[in-house]
Amino acid sequence: MKYDFATLDSLLSPRSVAIIGASDDPTRIGGRPIAAMLQAGYQGRLLPVNSGRSMVQGLVCHPDVASLPETPEAGIVAVAAQHAPGVVEALGRRGCRAVTLFSAGFAETGEAGRRAQEEVLAIAGRHGMRVLGPNTLGVYNLATGYFGTFSSSLELALPLPGRVGIASQSGAFGAHLSVLARERGIGASVLITTGNEADVTVADAVGWMAGSDAVDVICAYQEGFNDPERLLAALDAARAAGKPVFMLKSGRSQLGASAAASHTASLAGDDAVAEAVLADHGVIRVRDTDEMLDFAYAARARVFPRDNTLGIITISGGAGIVAADEAELAGLPMPPMPGAAQDRLREVLPYGAPGNPLDCTAQALNDLSLFETFTRSALQDGGYRSVLCFLTYVAGGASLAPRLLETLRRIRADFPDRLLALCLLGPEEVRRAYEDAGYLCFADPGRAVRAIAAMGRVGEMRGPQTQALPSLPEITLPGHTPDEHEAKRILTAAGIPAAPERIVSSAEEAMAAADDLGFPVVLKIVSPDILHKSDIGGVRLGLADGEAVREGYYGILSDVGRAAPAARVTGMLVARQLTGGVECFMGINRDPTFGPVAAFGLGGIFVEVLNDIVLRPCPFDESTAREMILSIRSAPLLTGARNRSPVDLDALAALLSRLSVFAVAAGPRLLSVDLNPVLARPDGAWALDAVVEITEDGMEDGEE
Amino acid sequence: MKYDFATLDSLLSPRSVAIIGASDDPTRIGGRPIAAMLQAGYQGRLLPVNSGRSMVQGLVCHPDVASLPETPEAGIVAVAAQHAPGVVEALGRRGCRAVTLFSAGFAETGEAGRRAQEEVLAIAGRHGMRVLGPNTLGVYNLATGYFGTFSSSLELALPLPGRVGIASQSGAFGAHLSVLARERGIGASVLITTGNEADVTVADAVGWMAGSDAVDVICAYQEGFNDPERLLAALDAARAAGKPVFMLKSGRSQLGASAAASHTASLAGDDAVAEAVLADHGVIRVRDTDEMLDFAYAARARVFPRDNTLGIITISGGAGIVAADEAELAGLPMPPMPGAAQDRLREVLPYGAPGNPLDCTAQALNDLSLFETFTRSALQDGGYRSVLCFLTYVAGGASLAPRLLETLRRIRADFPDRLLALCLLGPEEVRRAYEDAGYLCFADPGRAVRAIAAMGRVGEMRGPQTQALPSLPEITLPGHTPDEHEAKRILTAAGIPAAPERIVSSAEEAMAAADDLGFPVVLKIVSPDILHKSDIGGVRLGLADGEAVREGYYGILSDVGRAAPAARVTGMLVARQLTGGVECFMGINRDPTFGPVAAFGLGGIFVEVLNDIVLRPCPFDESTAREMILSIRSAPLLTGARNRSPVDLDALAALLSRLSVFAVAAGPRLLSVDLNPVLARPDGAWALDAVVEITEDGMEDGEE
Repeated sequence: MKYDFATLDSLLSPRSVAIIGASDDPTRIGGRPIAAMLQAGYQGRLLPVNSGRSMVQGLVCHPDVASLPETPEAGIVAVAAQHAPGVVEALGRRGCRAVTLFSAGFAETGEAGRRAQEEVLAIAGRHGMRVLGPNTLGVYNLATGYFGTFSSSLELALPLPGRVGIASQSGAFGAHLSVLARERGIGASVLITTGNEADVTVADAVGWMAGSDAVDVICAYQEGFNDPERLLAALDAARAAGKPVFMLKSGRSQLGASAAASHTASLAGDDAVAEAVLADHGVIRVRDTDEMLDFAYAARARVFPRDNTLGIITISGGAGIVAADEAELAGLPMPPMPGAAQDRLREVLPYGAPGNPLDCTAQALNDLSLFETFTRSALQDGGYRSVLCFLTYVAGGASLAPRLLETLRRIRADFPDRLLALCLLGPEEVRRAYEDAGYLCFADPGRAVRAIAAMGRVGEMRGPQTQALPSLPEITLPGHTPDEHEAKRILTAAGIPAAPERIVSSAEEAMAAADDLGFPVVLKIVSPDILHKSDIGGVRLGLADGEAVREGYYGILSDVGRAAPAARVTGMLVARQLTGGVECFMGINRDPTFGPVAAFGLGGIFVEVLNDIVLRPCPFDESTAREMILSIRSAPLLTGARNRSPVDLDALAALLSRLSVFAVAAGPRLLSVDLNPVLARPDGAWALDAVVEITEDGMEDGEE
Repeated sequence: MKYDFATLDSLLSPRSVAIIGASDDPTRIGGRPIAAMLQAGYQGRLLPVNSGRSMVQGLVCHPDVASLPETPEAGIVAVAAQHAPGVVEALGRRGCRAVTLFSAGFAETGEAGRRAQEEVLAIAGRHGMRVLGPNTLGVYNLATGYFGTFSSSLELALPLPGRVGIASQSGAFGAHLSVLARERGIGASVLITTGNEADVTVADAVGWMAGSDAVDVICAYQEGFNDPERLLAALDAARAAGKPVFMLKSGRSQLGASAAASHTASLAGDDAVAEAVLADHGVIRVRDTDEMLDFAYAARARVFPRDNTLGIITISGGAGIVAADEAELAGLPMPPMPGAAQDRLREVLPYGAPGNPLDCTAQALNDLSLFETFTRSALQDGGYRSVLCFLTYVAGGASLAPRLLETLRRIRADFPDRLLALCLLGPEEVRRAYEDAGYLCFADPGRAVRAIAAMGRVGEMRGPQTQALPSLPEITLPGHTPDEHEAKRILTAAGIPAAPERIVSSAEEAMAAADDLGFPVVLKIVSPDILHKSDIGGVRLGLADGEAVREGYYGILSDVGRAAPAARVTGMLVARQLTGGVECFMGINRDPTFGPVAAFGLGGIFVEVLNDIVLRPCPFDESTAREMILSIRSAPLLTGARNRSPVDLDALAALLSRLSVFAVAAGPRLLSVDLNPVLARPDGAWALDAVVEITEDGMEDGEE
């Protein structure tokens, strides 16, 4: 593995820790970690350092790092910024492996602070130490009782034991999540806040959690992407370990409305690129803290149903409809119960509604066998991967709960692979009993449905991610950005079809070529100096016969000669004009953070005004390309809306997939590809125009 | 007022109540209301009726209604369905004013039950009694201690006092909301569940709450619309009383994807019509129970800022961004702080970020004067109508809370008209202290922002709703559905411009008319028997000279003669062909529930495939029409996207507004209008085609 996330062990589970700037006051920055570790029963050795005291919170205090009786595996630095370099140097000399720098006053304060931060980082680097911070709220790890944090939230209570880890750039937001988790009874036993990220980033934190025995579910809060390659490696490690990552990525609003430029990235916004890349690496993105903790809570069941479907058992028709509304919004299918099963249930309860939702009415709580019959039928006959039972406060009542629990336990035992959830209200101890019986409990039916849908998405992410990529011949890019004809030649060689065309250099050749290709044809100027041919009269469409071709040829030469007298004209392109069908847009843009990203949408206003575009990092296979194509809002125009003939989706998907493979095979010199339009027809798909941008030879990435 | 919602007083605040089927067991249906009223201290007289008992829960029990010592103002009927008619008759004879029918087994069970329900309703009607139910969970009204409900949720605890009312068709869902409210510390002091709605509907419940001194905020759960006219009257009463209505309307998912037909209603779906009408009557629609209770909670502040803007004060940059993301999604503007104020704040705290969000860093909690300076500046200099402070668990700490409270109280006193909210975590008593100081408290920043945005929407709804409607000449509809020319004539008379056109009856007349109107022209067949002219060759476009007009004329006659030999042809329409611009769709559809509803969208795929359409009940003025036009996703195509010239929005809005006024003035015989396309150009807007559907004379509404 390229990244060794295990080096964070010394930050999260040190066998000994020196606290420099240790305070006897448990509410001060240098006192809080000690107080918390004493309370939590830290399993390692606590080594307070403070030149002014001999005892701190009942522990022997040492005057400086040099006089420590042993080498601390970790150091917590709670001194003013100007003293930090000296302390870090001293820790390094003693052989310390990792330092947590609470100190503020570094890069977040401007240029001088940035230099000071680099200095500290260089010192740590010389000694091979990992650095958390500076300007970090720190970390905790309940498994070893290690609390390298000065969060005042610990004064309220320690976190609950559990298998959720929180990784956050923002200290306040990370601790906020941690407190929220505790208030909701969720065990977030690891918190890593990374502050200025001089060294350790959220990516490291996620990567460490991916390998940690203490964490099953990873909650991450991310602002920018300081180290995207490391983040993707960490996400892949989490996926390989079967641990879902729920991420709150802020900065959505920068997506913005204006999308005037013609490039993929600016069309969709950086946030959209990040979204596509994160999804591709298995991240489930969440909207707010509620959603994050709902999903983390739901993941405790460790049931992540692939091909998820939802059956709803309800004692209230209304609640069933509310939940079904939400399922549709969440894209969670709710197929109806099979007819025969519905007939059987109607015999059992004539006034129920056994479709889906299955309304077994309040009667089912008077006669629990009814509830059990309906629920078992949903699982058995309906085969739903997930079942949600709306039982409201009735299930929380003291008289019903014990009997209902028994019923639910029997059902749980018989269907261990299903995701089972209840919507109920009641005292906490009652809710906990249902949870212990293997049921997720929610108060709001909508939130329950969204969490169930998310667990299905986790399931899809966890499955085998094999891609059947088309194989391409070896790609050799020319030394510079090619003209349209050359661009199409390169793409055609990679199996990306274009309309049949010829390069000619006289009107007579043009006429002969047109005869050969078949009318109507289109004529286009070919010049390395002209990018936007139409704007200067360099294109003639719909030429129906030889004479029109001749007139068009001279017309273009004259228009272009007038509009761009200095342009070098290397020839004229004659192409068979394909008509009908739907014009699509396909593009590749090399994202500076994430590499080549493919875009697909319908041509013109659909992409540029309605922003109806789908992105995906390259490469991907045909079935993925097909999913992308069908995911845009205007997809019905491709599949037969308004009495159109459906286009050849197989050909279109093959073209998009091949383009994505080409983008990777072409290497980092490929900057962008714009195929605009790609014409999709019932009988195939062809690139009608192609712009391929290439870094000049000798101008590789990083040398620009 | 057409509806007297005050007759529900006897249902909600009776001075005496008979419980027929009274039970000594406080957990049985006939026992729960008595137990709850005894516990809540019902202010009226409880009159249990049960032939088998002389005492019930410590109260004297009467053998039947006839032997009651006094006339009960209300009756609660907890007997089997077959006994209900007799009991209702007896109550009516005694002069009872309102009955609550818990009994199930009526319309919800099929045809026989429906007849039984009608029988009971007829009995009640003869005695002038209002009926709640049957099959209802009942009502409660904490103000008078009246509990006419058998909800088992009361066994857990009584509701909290407060000024929120809940109206729900579904008993289980209404009670679920009530319990959720209590768990969140929200006082829902009135609950009305309407069950089968034989008489009293959710509309009545909302109307009664609009007039009730006990309710300030109305939460409604609605499935269908059994009595739309009454509902709108109730909503208008609530708006007039300044009481926000938050509604969860289920059945969104029935909206469905297929929108192939060309009619307004089927284009957008019934749910979209309901949504438009509800919004027009001031309803704030909510997505789930969380949102409903968040909004009800936020409304307790009684601050509903019009022209709402949001300033965010945060001690965590990350949380500020998360909240700003959410504000953009919620359409809540966050203008930046004025430059001069930013400069002043930067002097006070060099490392803060005084834009908006205003990041005053954790330092502001060490030095509260910083926090106060930032917050006051946001209110004073930024002028934000709403301010949210992200303080997380730090504000919940015992040491900070008292000092912070003092600061917050001072600020509150100086800005009484602003909506002030905190995002914090902490013990309930601390949170309550902040609430008592006049601050809304939320755990999740996103939820806080959504609630603040909703309060602004309430403010807009509460303002004066005056519409400056254009005045039209009197409309006289013809006796039957008119042809295109006649339709345009009617519309033109109403000030809705169409392209200049003539009716002709020979090729020569056509050529002369074309000369007169100016080329190019379009020719269209005119026939009462042909609706879709293009499909049978009845249209010729782009005729550039006289000869083309002649050919077109004969071509149409020949094509139509072949395709529709039986059609009566009354003439040919010659119209100046307007070109360029953007084709729009406008329509009116008479919704069977809500009357004429106008639709606007861009022509063709935008409406039919992308479902990019806006609806609004008629009539409305030009500024409303302009808002509608600008609200569609594809609006940039009208305002100058992709180097287009912006169209004449004033003309387009005037046309749409006039159409809406026309739709109302034309009366119920007008079934629909389709203007498709309306051409919008920089120099005006014209209906290029018009289909007006009219009920035949003598076939008024209700007689069909």
